[in-house]
Amino acid sequence: MAKDSGTAAKSGGEANKGITPRATDYSQWYLDVINAAELIDASPVRGCMVFRPNGMGIWEAMRDDLDRRFKDTGHVNAYFPLFIPQSFLSKEADHVEGFAKECAVVTHHRLRAAAGGGVEPDPDAKLEEPLVVRPTSETIIWHMYGRWIDSYRDLPILINQWANVVRWEMRTRPFLRTAEFLWQEGHTAHATRDEAVEEAERMLGVYRDFAKETLAIPVMPGRKSPSERFAGALDTYTIEAMMQNGWALQAGTSHFLGQNFARAFDVTFQNAKGERELVWATSWGVSTRLIGAVIMTHSDDTGLVMPPKIAPVQVAIVPIWKGDDQKADLLAFADKVKRLLGPGYRVKVDDRDNIKPGAKYFDWERRGVPLRMEIGPRDMANDAVFCARRIGGAKFALPVGDDAAAFRARVQEVLDGIHAELYARAEALRASRTYRISRYAELQERIGEGGFFLVPWCDDADNEATIKTETRATVRCFPIDGQEEAAGQTCFYSGRPATHMAIFARAY
Amino acid sequence: MAKDSGTAAKSGGEANKGITPRATDYSQWYLDVINAAELIDASPVRGCMVFRPNGMGIWEAMRDDLDRRFKDTGHVNAYFPLFIPQSFLSKEADHVEGFAKECAVVTHHRLRAAAGGGVEPDPDAKLEEPLVVRPTSETIIWHMYGRWIDSYRDLPILINQWANVVRWEMRTRPFLRTAEFLWQEGHTAHATRDEAVEEAERMLGVYRDFAKETLAIPVMPGRKSPSERFAGALDTYTIEAMMQNGWALQAGTSHFLGQNFARAFDVTFQNAKGERELVWATSWGVSTRLIGAVIMTHSDDTGLVMPPKIAPVQVAIVPIWKGDDQKADLLAFADKVKRLLGPGYRVKVDDRDNIKPGAKYFDWERRGVPLRMEIGPRDMANDAVFCARRIGGAKFALPVGDDAAAFRARVQEVLDGIHAELYARAEALRASRTYRISRYAELQERIGEGGFFLVPWCDDADNEATIKTETRATVRCFPIDGQEEAAGQTCFYSGRPATHMAIFARAY
Repeated sequence: MAKDSGTAAKSGGEANKGITPRATDYSQWYLDVINAAELIDASPVRGCMVFRPNGMGIWEAMRDDLDRRFKDTGHVNAYFPLFIPQSFLSKEADHVEGFAKECAVVTHHRLRAAAGGGVEPDPDAKLEEPLVVRPTSETIIWHMYGRWIDSYRDLPILINQWANVVRWEMRTRPFLRTAEFLWQEGHTAHATRDEAVEEAERMLGVYRDFAKETLAIPVMPGRKSPSERFAGALDTYTIEAMMQNGWALQAGTSHFLGQNFARAFDVTFQNAKGERELVWATSWGVSTRLIGAVIMTHSDDTGLVMPPKIAPVQVAIVPIWKGDDQKADLLAFADKVKRLLGPGYRVKVDDRDNIKPGAKYFDWERRGVPLRMEIGPRDMANDAVFCARRIGGAKFALPVGDDAAAFRARVQEVLDGIHAELYARAEALRASRTYRISRYAELQERIGEGGFFLVPWCDDADNEATIKTETRATVRCFPIDGQEEAAGQTCFYSGRPATHMAIFARAY
Repeated sequence: MAKDSGTAAKSGGEANKGITPRATDYSQWYLDVINAAELIDASPVRGCMVFRPNGMGIWEAMRDDLDRRFKDTGHVNAYFPLFIPQSFLSKEADHVEGFAKECAVVTHHRLRAAAGGGVEPDPDAKLEEPLVVRPTSETIIWHMYGRWIDSYRDLPILINQWANVVRWEMRTRPFLRTAEFLWQEGHTAHATRDEAVEEAERMLGVYRDFAKETLAIPVMPGRKSPSERFAGALDTYTIEAMMQNGWALQAGTSHFLGQNFARAFDVTFQNAKGERELVWATSWGVSTRLIGAVIMTHSDDTGLVMPPKIAPVQVAIVPIWKGDDQKADLLAFADKVKRLLGPGYRVKVDDRDNIKPGAKYFDWERRGVPLRMEIGPRDMANDAVFCARRIGGAKFALPVGDDAAAFRARVQEVLDGIHAELYARAEALRASRTYRISRYAELQERIGEGGFFLVPWCDDADNEATIKTETRATVRCFPIDGQEEAAGQTCFYSGRPATHMAIFARAY
């Protein structure tokens, strides 16, 4: 368990109200942080969450940022149906195995009045073929690609979809594991194997950069072991993040699907020589579980901590007035500051009457707002705002002035500094808790404290399963960097020649 | 039937390939335009459409524009579950009446291997209570509001949701009527009746402005007659657009829901005096059917015509080269033009090798791209682009230069001119086909040619139903403007004193 870094801003005695400290109960802390920041709420539908405005704002900021990255790499958005004919799922053997057990199934298209009052499914409106609510869209998309692809000139297809998906989970956890969640799924079609592999790797890179540059999360890019691959993939790439308790969280995956879906849905193209070939595929996705990753990477015992780029409110301006005259002047000044920042920043002026300044500070802190600007009469007289960073450090006065560009540059520097510090902090934690070990006994001894365990490994699904049973640790990935180290080493478990360097960890 | 205005750009003999003229068959023309522009495709799921990238791009541009307008009027986004417990639907009597007959119903949460191969719903995984795929979200949202609202300090709640919804339609038409569609639904909660009415009217205004400023569609704002109201509303506001065949299309609605949903879900608040009151509600929405409205308002016999603000491609740059040397130079120039336009414009450089310039022009025309820039060696020598507007008029040279802001201003002026002309054209059509009549016989005679018929009307559901049966015309709305004219007039149908001025029309 990571200790509180001590950098959290304090707001007097209320600071920890309602939030269990991480050291006491990490899982409860996570729920408390979410609750205090009003990110989501349980719904009357089992396993489905309501994204409240604060939670939705985080996802919107992530989506806009990622969408720009997808478009910059040549992708376009499309939208495919929510429903998938039940028979489609069976067309790819591994795929049905992976998803059939957690599907919401639509069987009727009408309700009727029930005898005892209320309504019930109308037996006369039973569907000939049940429909599955998409758990992922490979099958319906490859059905459509079969209609759109005929010649090599139709390739590549580089499509992404923003959508809701449903996987019936029996044990749910906010953001990390819910029956319905929001995500994006990229689905691309290529003429050659090399091009598809390159695409899968490119998108892993996009995810890695997004995690670093936007979420301030350092991630470990790697390949999944065969037993952890996506249902239907030949190769699954992943980025793995380390949470503050040392557990791993799979933050995004990119799959090289080979020709599996093209074969299942009979999708061929005529190459330049006039021969017909099966099409090569990738798919890749990240979801609202990233919000969980951000919370568990950056937040502290005071509550939520949001990286500036995805904070729904980046700057909270809190005027501190006595009496109505002062109030009017200070609100006007606060509005000026907001106007100077312009539409490129998400800013809230806290003009609430019935709450004291201290309580306002506390409120914005537990909501994770990166930068708070306090404005009292003296600050206004100095044409300055008094700044408090959510992640602590000395408060400081920031000159305002009338030059919007200059003021924005000063504010941006503060926000960039916060981002850099969040990243550095997370990277330092990960470095301090990534262990090179060479004996299985060490894993057994130490897995309880969390951490990433880097080991020489001889790939073997049975051994993997045994280790999982005995330690609850799984192969998170074979890291992209450093695989050459495996040569000449022996597997930390079996003693056979190592085939990979592997990261073992407990994971969400 | 509106004649082709003659302003459509021409591309030689191919111009009408594959597109049925409007005068021949308006419905087929609509389908042909959609098909030629590759906006959507049918899917293997009954009534569900695939939004191809060109179609999705239109919706994304609409969404971004509307979302800004919602945020500017104080709204925030949230996301509620896709599934609604079946029993929720019955809680508001009118609501269940309106939606129970067209619901997709989820009854199982798992598939199993079927005896004859394939899969089937697992009888052991039957849900205790079936779930409905949301046809609209009032019920689940008001359930949640019941948890979030306690005091007048919690009000108003101004939430919007972008989502997919499902209404099982037996007869579908692309964009206008599909089983699944994309939309936004605003749901607000207020302390007073006046505030809720004001909100419903404000959002009607937002829709009206959006239609005019972004879609270049003139709309008629009005109130629905009681029989055309949303299921559960006390008052439904609507914007009605006129398509080129004179039919009406309901383009957006805003509902004053009174206290109906608060009553059904027991949502009360404590007012400033300490008394508990039921909360007042509105809801409002527009959907992907707006894409159909845009197509039928602006397109012509050559194909799609897109207003610049929502065109997925706003400017197509077509370099015309002979030989590889010229090609390299012209592509470099085209890239310079694109770079000058910057990320604020959606621009495509058409560098395809295997297609002649004429075919490229035709391609961008039928995709509705507002502005095409042709670049030959002479244009490049003059540091200019040769511009063709999708809606016709003489082609003209536009100087490029090195001053990005100046070039953008010139291009923006052209695009603004196109928008203004589209709007003026649609407004002129509507004016020329809006008829004031005072006798029912006139409606019977002339309804076949289409048009809006403005009449003095004594509100009466039975008479409305008879007129619908006899003429297929419905009350589209009681226009907001001009209701005072009804005073002293007699109903065009019943001869009783008129209660309203009403627009009758056939509608999609």
